[in-house]
Amino acid sequence: MASDPKDPLVLFMPSGKRGRFPVGTSLLDAARQLGVHVESVCGGRATCGRCQVAVQEGSFAKFGITSSSDHVSAPGGKEDRYDRLRGLPAGRRLACSAAILGDLVVDVPQDTTVNAQVVRKAASDRVIARDPAVRLCYVEVDPPDMHQPLGDLDRLKAVLVRDWGIHDPAVPLRLLPQVQTILRRENWGVTVAVHHDADGTRPEILALWPGLHNQAYGIACDIGSTTIALHLMSLLSGRVLASAGAPNPQIRFGEDLMSRVSYVMMNPEGREAMTRAVREAVNGLIAKVCAEGDVAADDILDAVFVANPIMHHLFLGIDPTELGQAPFALAVSGAVQTTMAELGLSGNAGARAYLLPCIAGHVGADAAAATLAEDPHRQDRMMLLVDIGTNAEIVLGNAARTVAASSPTGPAFEGAEISCGQRAAPGAIERVRIDPDTLEPRFRIIGSELWSDAPGFAAEANRLGVTGLCGSAIIEVVAEMYLSGIVTGDGVISGAQAARSPRIIPNGRTFSYLLHDGQPRIAVTQNDLRAVQLAKAALYAGIRLLMEKQGVAAVDTIRLAGAFGSFIDPKYAMVLGLIPDCDLAEVRAVGNAAGTGAMMALLNRGHRREIEQVVQRIEKIETALEPHFQQLFVDAMGLPHKVDAFPHLAREVALPPRGDPGGGAPGDSPRRRRENRVTRRRDQA
Amino acid sequence: MASDPKDPLVLFMPSGKRGRFPVGTSLLDAARQLGVHVESVCGGRATCGRCQVAVQEGSFAKFGITSSSDHVSAPGGKEDRYDRLRGLPAGRRLACSAAILGDLVVDVPQDTTVNAQVVRKAASDRVIARDPAVRLCYVEVDPPDMHQPLGDLDRLKAVLVRDWGIHDPAVPLRLLPQVQTILRRENWGVTVAVHHDADGTRPEILALWPGLHNQAYGIACDIGSTTIALHLMSLLSGRVLASAGAPNPQIRFGEDLMSRVSYVMMNPEGREAMTRAVREAVNGLIAKVCAEGDVAADDILDAVFVANPIMHHLFLGIDPTELGQAPFALAVSGAVQTTMAELGLSGNAGARAYLLPCIAGHVGADAAAATLAEDPHRQDRMMLLVDIGTNAEIVLGNAARTVAASSPTGPAFEGAEISCGQRAAPGAIERVRIDPDTLEPRFRIIGSELWSDAPGFAAEANRLGVTGLCGSAIIEVVAEMYLSGIVTGDGVISGAQAARSPRIIPNGRTFSYLLHDGQPRIAVTQNDLRAVQLAKAALYAGIRLLMEKQGVAAVDTIRLAGAFGSFIDPKYAMVLGLIPDCDLAEVRAVGNAAGTGAMMALLNRGHRREIEQVVQRIEKIETALEPHFQQLFVDAMGLPHKVDAFPHLAREVALPPRGDPGGGAPGDSPRRRRENRVTRRRDQA
Repeated sequence: MASDPKDPLVLFMPSGKRGRFPVGTSLLDAARQLGVHVESVCGGRATCGRCQVAVQEGSFAKFGITSSSDHVSAPGGKEDRYDRLRGLPAGRRLACSAAILGDLVVDVPQDTTVNAQVVRKAASDRVIARDPAVRLCYVEVDPPDMHQPLGDLDRLKAVLVRDWGIHDPAVPLRLLPQVQTILRRENWGVTVAVHHDADGTRPEILALWPGLHNQAYGIACDIGSTTIALHLMSLLSGRVLASAGAPNPQIRFGEDLMSRVSYVMMNPEGREAMTRAVREAVNGLIAKVCAEGDVAADDILDAVFVANPIMHHLFLGIDPTELGQAPFALAVSGAVQTTMAELGLSGNAGARAYLLPCIAGHVGADAAAATLAEDPHRQDRMMLLVDIGTNAEIVLGNAARTVAASSPTGPAFEGAEISCGQRAAPGAIERVRIDPDTLEPRFRIIGSELWSDAPGFAAEANRLGVTGLCGSAIIEVVAEMYLSGIVTGDGVISGAQAARSPRIIPNGRTFSYLLHDGQPRIAVTQNDLRAVQLAKAALYAGIRLLMEKQGVAAVDTIRLAGAFGSFIDPKYAMVLGLIPDCDLAEVRAVGNAAGTGAMMALLNRGHRREIEQVVQRIEKIETALEPHFQQLFVDAMGLPHKVDAFPHLAREVALPPRGDPGGGAPGDSPRRRRENRVTRRRDQA
Repeated sequence: MASDPKDPLVLFMPSGKRGRFPVGTSLLDAARQLGVHVESVCGGRATCGRCQVAVQEGSFAKFGITSSSDHVSAPGGKEDRYDRLRGLPAGRRLACSAAILGDLVVDVPQDTTVNAQVVRKAASDRVIARDPAVRLCYVEVDPPDMHQPLGDLDRLKAVLVRDWGIHDPAVPLRLLPQVQTILRRENWGVTVAVHHDADGTRPEILALWPGLHNQAYGIACDIGSTTIALHLMSLLSGRVLASAGAPNPQIRFGEDLMSRVSYVMMNPEGREAMTRAVREAVNGLIAKVCAEGDVAADDILDAVFVANPIMHHLFLGIDPTELGQAPFALAVSGAVQTTMAELGLSGNAGARAYLLPCIAGHVGADAAAATLAEDPHRQDRMMLLVDIGTNAEIVLGNAARTVAASSPTGPAFEGAEISCGQRAAPGAIERVRIDPDTLEPRFRIIGSELWSDAPGFAAEANRLGVTGLCGSAIIEVVAEMYLSGIVTGDGVISGAQAARSPRIIPNGRTFSYLLHDGQPRIAVTQNDLRAVQLAKAALYAGIRLLMEKQGVAAVDTIRLAGAFGSFIDPKYAMVLGLIPDCDLAEVRAVGNAAGTGAMMALLNRGHRREIEQVVQRIEKIETALEPHFQQLFVDAMGLPHKVDAFPHLAREVALPPRGDPGGGAPGDSPRRRRENRVTRRRDQA
């Protein structure tokens, strides 16, 4: 764009984009020319109020700008009218009506901090630049003219080119019978919902309303094996209006993924029943968020879904049988573009639907969405992103190269296969400490802030019950048992310790540790230990495999995604050897990163292109094809495997002395360990 | 394309395209590089047999080519195998397997002469170059690979790019659940139906079949107010497999267009009932042609429809009320792209549907299709194209400029408003002659070859009945009455002639002419005369208006489209003054030109773009807006108006002497007439 150096300089925040514009240019035009997304439905008529911005006052030396409200035209007739009719917050201007008179710094309000609902940590709040695939365009169509007998729709298309630069959109047959009535109802003024995904495909008109229609919503939905989470967002403001979650009703067909695949294989109607069940559940959530957000389902115009590969296939109505056996072939791995109606979902009849691409047969659109949210592919440092479920999905990379794999951790971390395991629910033990001297435990249960040795806990326990161990407690109790010497390095509950504490109880030929002598009795058995070992070894071996592929001995930063990742204490995860050594300050739970990624793809079509391209670049590692994986798995069985590979952890936790009996999972030689450290330092240099 | 002047020269007929290609190039590749459409489903595997061509022998001096079957590689293993399995006609080669060794002239068989079914005249047979919007592509997909875990569909897309140059087609949700089963059924060989309309829109996969699927059909359908005509064509060979017609069942809601619009306005469910009726009728015809052509409806992959604006709207489910009143606004004038399924029509679940654009509120997609078929826009000479129905649709133009209008002729030519009028059916009088001396008539009826004065006619008349006058007979009887002096130039049945013949009978204050004194009595009344005069004056005034717009006093060539135009004798049409004077050898009935245009758009996507562009260029004249139209209408009431403006006709027919009583429809002054002739000569110069 050619600009005169004498023209005023305008800086838009938070994007930081700036340029010079002739005096008199509207702020909306300036934003558009710079590619700064400022919403506008009415196309500059000062009626929709969507283009609100705030002019900053003061000197911005870094940019050489002194901004002042004198540098912008005073509010005029149209803006005053809007203020009278609809109200304009103090300090806000309509960008379409405010003309540039001098240098300016302009704030584009970004109301979208999508992680706020999901994780409480302020650090993971995230601003998503809005540029949705579906937009509203108000136009005023020329009345019919017998001398130029273009059809009503054709004149509508002509003005879409002229006012909005939208060329030759497709128009579904469904809308043709409505065009004439809608155009005439408000004297040829009409709001057009246009899907324009900027992926080279033809734009499409989704819906038409007479006059100015100022509401457009979308849903972002993460279909997990266990839980479905759904958010209702405004496509115009970017705000989350309501969120809701529900258990995945497919659980009644099979608790874990593989049992659902089996159900399909055994029952001719199984696939259809599960597809119907999940879609009904999504519809239930849509109804719920619409009620909560006071939004008409008809105003939902777009939807983004993420899911693991099997959920993804069942949601789309695809038989997942091929995913249950090598070579784990996905029916479709690329992003899927369809409509809510075709998926049987409530929304506007024209509402679109988008599913993020899957990375591989075991690494789904949910992992892709988490990748989009945490963006290892934009990092200089080596980021490990782990989403732990029945399968752990693991992504390791930086801007130079990203690798991904899934590892079959099994359901131990979700409480299954553990004798006293249970889902996270009130009464479940979630935190555990064991006194290394007395071997006496103390714990906390979900629903109470009190530790079990605090006064008043008994009343709480009476009220809530003490019902079992949830996933985070399983990690902690095993780690504490190890740190206190109850369990040896090779994962055996040591009968030798039975003399020290009555809580170590013979149980056939092995021993158990009694955590709570109530109703029920809550104990950790040797079998539980083995299940945890198998699970954590699978996860760690998968991570290790990717680290080998990347040629690194350590990672710089770790993101733990998913519900499990949000509740475990990174320190205990490290003690147990779920995750590799890392500065604990660099280990962060990011909550439902997959859901965040879905929101990003909903609000910004550029993120769709981004993840489609990133997924193509990600190198997929199939653990089943790596002969080395078995060795890594065996190596990772010990507690913790390779103690010396945990220098950061060793600074935080008093690990049991090396060479303790049975800690004999084969470790690296000292020389190899030194080399690893050197490698790591090189990576950091 | 860079080519070596020493390379062999290959000429493809009938396109005449030629180029030089290195020795060893396959004929299929050469054709593709030149843009010559040679069908191929199997992509060069010599299994589909669609790419058959014939090598000519001999010297083609004009092109400097001596062609010989020695200049092409001998049939090899794959071609022999195809010949053994499926049979290759003598002289035919598979273009994919025949390699260029020397100069060649290659015939690409063009089996499509679509007019053959419609009009018997060989002169109007037409070869349509095939390049359909839907094509079949056989591909062999790579099996899944855990190291490159692209989904099955994604690998299919990759091979579509590699083998067929089709990039990133859209895939409907409906197909996703079928992909894996279909790919595995024939060992990763699959035939893909791709819609690629070359209008800048994204290609789309419509259907998938395991292995080689060698059948693809389309339908071309003209939805007339009275009759629906439908043709089943092979998209691969271009052949018409079957044709069928049926009355438009909307007739029960209203005989003519405006009464159907009224029905919609008066009945809340009227629009829906008429939409359902016409779609059911089309489905009935599809079933009929499929049975006749031994084709599975599932193999119908594309459909093209043409219709007048009101039929067009009702077929699409659009309320036509706006078309019943000024400004006659079409809901949509541009081409409509949709699917057969959305229209409720039988065909493959993915089958597409295309409606040609409408020209104006009274000049529909049928007129556009007739324009495509007769292509005035490609002519140097001034062509008049007339489709006579309740509205006459008139196009006048040449390559420089084309204008169009519709004129409200009313239903007289269709037999309505005429006392003894009837539709063309066995027993209807279709030809009439009147002896100018005796005023005795003779006639022929539909279903018999005999004239009424021939021996044996009485038996025929007994068998068939003599039931009324069809449209062509109405023209002829009135023209003959004029030529024999029964009717004066101003359209009055002359009581003065009653003395000469008992057939001229008083009828209140006017007279009738008794054509056939049977059961029923068939006579032409004065009211009939007035109805014919009004109809022909409307048509001629419309033509005259367009001639004025074009600044011409005469046209070079005339095309009469539609059933009516096919049966009338151009000479009588000219005597009556329906059409302007023209060399009778240049007046040609072209049958259902609209149907021909539909076939062209079905078989060649280029014709879709052509007519879309032409329609934008056509200047639309609204007769209701032209103050001059009324004067032209009054001027055209006489029989024939402006006798001297018919020099060609005067050479063929003994027109009654000028100045005969009542021949007083205001004619041009002699000076003006001379100028007209001069203008015309200039046009021809």
